[in-house]
Amino acid sequence: MASMENLPVVLFHRRSSYTLALKDRLSPHFHLLDPFDTQEPISSFLSVHGYSIRALLCVGYTPITSETLNFLPSLELIVAGSAGVDHIALQECHRRGITITNASLAFAEDAADHAVGLLIDVLRRISAADRFVRAGSWPVMGDFPLGFKLGGKRVGIVGYGSVGSEVAKRLAAFGCNIAYNSRKRKPSVPFPYYENVHNLAVDSDILILCCSLTKETHHIINEGVMKSLGKGVIVNVGRGSLVDEKTLVQFLVEGKLGGAGLDVFENEPHVPKEMLCLDNVVLSAHRAVFTPESFEALIELCLANLKAFFSNEPLQSVVKIE
Amino acid sequence: MASMENLPVVLFHRRSSYTLALKDRLSPHFHLLDPFDTQEPISSFLSVHGYSIRALLCVGYTPITSETLNFLPSLELIVAGSAGVDHIALQECHRRGITITNASLAFAEDAADHAVGLLIDVLRRISAADRFVRAGSWPVMGDFPLGFKLGGKRVGIVGYGSVGSEVAKRLAAFGCNIAYNSRKRKPSVPFPYYENVHNLAVDSDILILCCSLTKETHHIINEGVMKSLGKGVIVNVGRGSLVDEKTLVQFLVEGKLGGAGLDVFENEPHVPKEMLCLDNVVLSAHRAVFTPESFEALIELCLANLKAFFSNEPLQSVVKIE
Repeated sequence: MASMENLPVVLFHRRSSYTLALKDRLSPHFHLLDPFDTQEPISSFLSVHGYSIRALLCVGYTPITSETLNFLPSLELIVAGSAGVDHIALQECHRRGITITNASLAFAEDAADHAVGLLIDVLRRISAADRFVRAGSWPVMGDFPLGFKLGGKRVGIVGYGSVGSEVAKRLAAFGCNIAYNSRKRKPSVPFPYYENVHNLAVDSDILILCCSLTKETHHIINEGVMKSLGKGVIVNVGRGSLVDEKTLVQFLVEGKLGGAGLDVFENEPHVPKEMLCLDNVVLSAHRAVFTPESFEALIELCLANLKAFFSNEPLQSVVKIE
Repeated sequence: MASMENLPVVLFHRRSSYTLALKDRLSPHFHLLDPFDTQEPISSFLSVHGYSIRALLCVGYTPITSETLNFLPSLELIVAGSAGVDHIALQECHRRGITITNASLAFAEDAADHAVGLLIDVLRRISAADRFVRAGSWPVMGDFPLGFKLGGKRVGIVGYGSVGSEVAKRLAAFGCNIAYNSRKRKPSVPFPYYENVHNLAVDSDILILCCSLTKETHHIINEGVMKSLGKGVIVNVGRGSLVDEKTLVQFLVEGKLGGAGLDVFENEPHVPKEMLCLDNVVLSAHRAVFTPESFEALIELCLANLKAFFSNEPLQSVVKIE
């Protein structure tokens, strides 16, 4: 076994409570500096070790603030073990010339599968039917109310990155008519582009939120967009704060929206209690990107990017900061 | 408006309780004979009118027995308003040279959507997560257990007709590896063919049942097949009796199967009570083929086939009886 001293040093940046197979899988290849291995406060740990650290693995959503970065003057690479990177001070990284990679490649297929699952569930009322059957209502009340067909529906995808493109690929096979909104038109994408999410909502039966949470996308789905969507369906596998949740709840309760499939919420793990009794809503607990298979893909991606960095090879899934 | 006497006569074969927009939509084009429009018992109604009837529209699952056919010596065509035709005496129709059309074309996309929805729901535990969130367990119990990824799974489709082929089209877009079993190999299908459902189960993580219920397919998923599938998942959008339900329940309760997504049951509307508390099972109430859009497609298909028959034009979705 190689001596740990010969291995490249990587800061293992995590919360105290976070445990993952990641560490076991990475430790044969890197000298992992984990502040929680010591009794020291993190700030004093970083004061001692921070100067030499060139690469950092960010586990889950552990925040990386400007203050954290002040301890790490030699930092060149942040490997984020998450799809979203809104917990990282992106502009400060940009200013310092720090490269960030995310894990959306590892998670994109899972997130897309979950988005499609939530959508079919809302339209065809699967979870509601499951409640109906489990409650013993079928023999008593007869036929369960009809759902709606997926094929032919106009689906607007908000955020056409790795997740959005996987959603499009799947829903095209169901016969949906797809359009998308993103910061820029993507020349290689065959679907209609909408620069404005309001216009996309007007022309859609369904909106699927797959974008990152940034200052620009915070509450991108506001009251005006919901009005434009009318009796449509919103599916959110991005971040809770993409949607003005208070208005979403009001629109759902008042029947102004057709339904919603939500994996993320503004104040997780708290879900607005008004939603808990609605039959046209399907709720999951921020699990869109979590399967054993995606964890395995995450480990492989983190390993590959860290190895590539220390060998001066090209990185995968680099985050563009604009 | 054309006098009813000039319109072709069609027997509107239905149960007393069955109501549908079908009749309103067909009546401008055909002279519909509906036994329930009179006070007569059906047998005496058929004794009077049966001799002249060349075409019959079978609404829902109204049985057509040999006895029914004895009243209808001139019958040439049965237009079934359902995907399955196991409520019709097929061999007797074959003997008498009666052509049967079914409605699987109208329902195939809905049934395939529902099958995929059930599958994602079982694998990614969406209905179970929805129960977890609605019960207020997320803040109390923390992370909900992981589901499994759909991509890369080996999916065996049992019955590769109109529904099975639509399921395959959808699951290919999710990155599943597809194989199929049917009476005969289909030369145009690009996926591996298994003559034997046991061998298909051995090589599958998931079985999706899309075949008709016949003498040959009754309990096609028996104990041996379930053993061959191991910890896999069964999705049934065909008919309840395709599966030995007693054994299915036992295998699910004992954890010998990974899970099940079931829209159909052996003794509907009754669902085995042991299933009602299982978290790896998703239950819907025989709704796979019912949406307003598929009803509209059904009406169009029935109209088209009846018009084609009376104009000596080719029929759509003729049932092959072997």
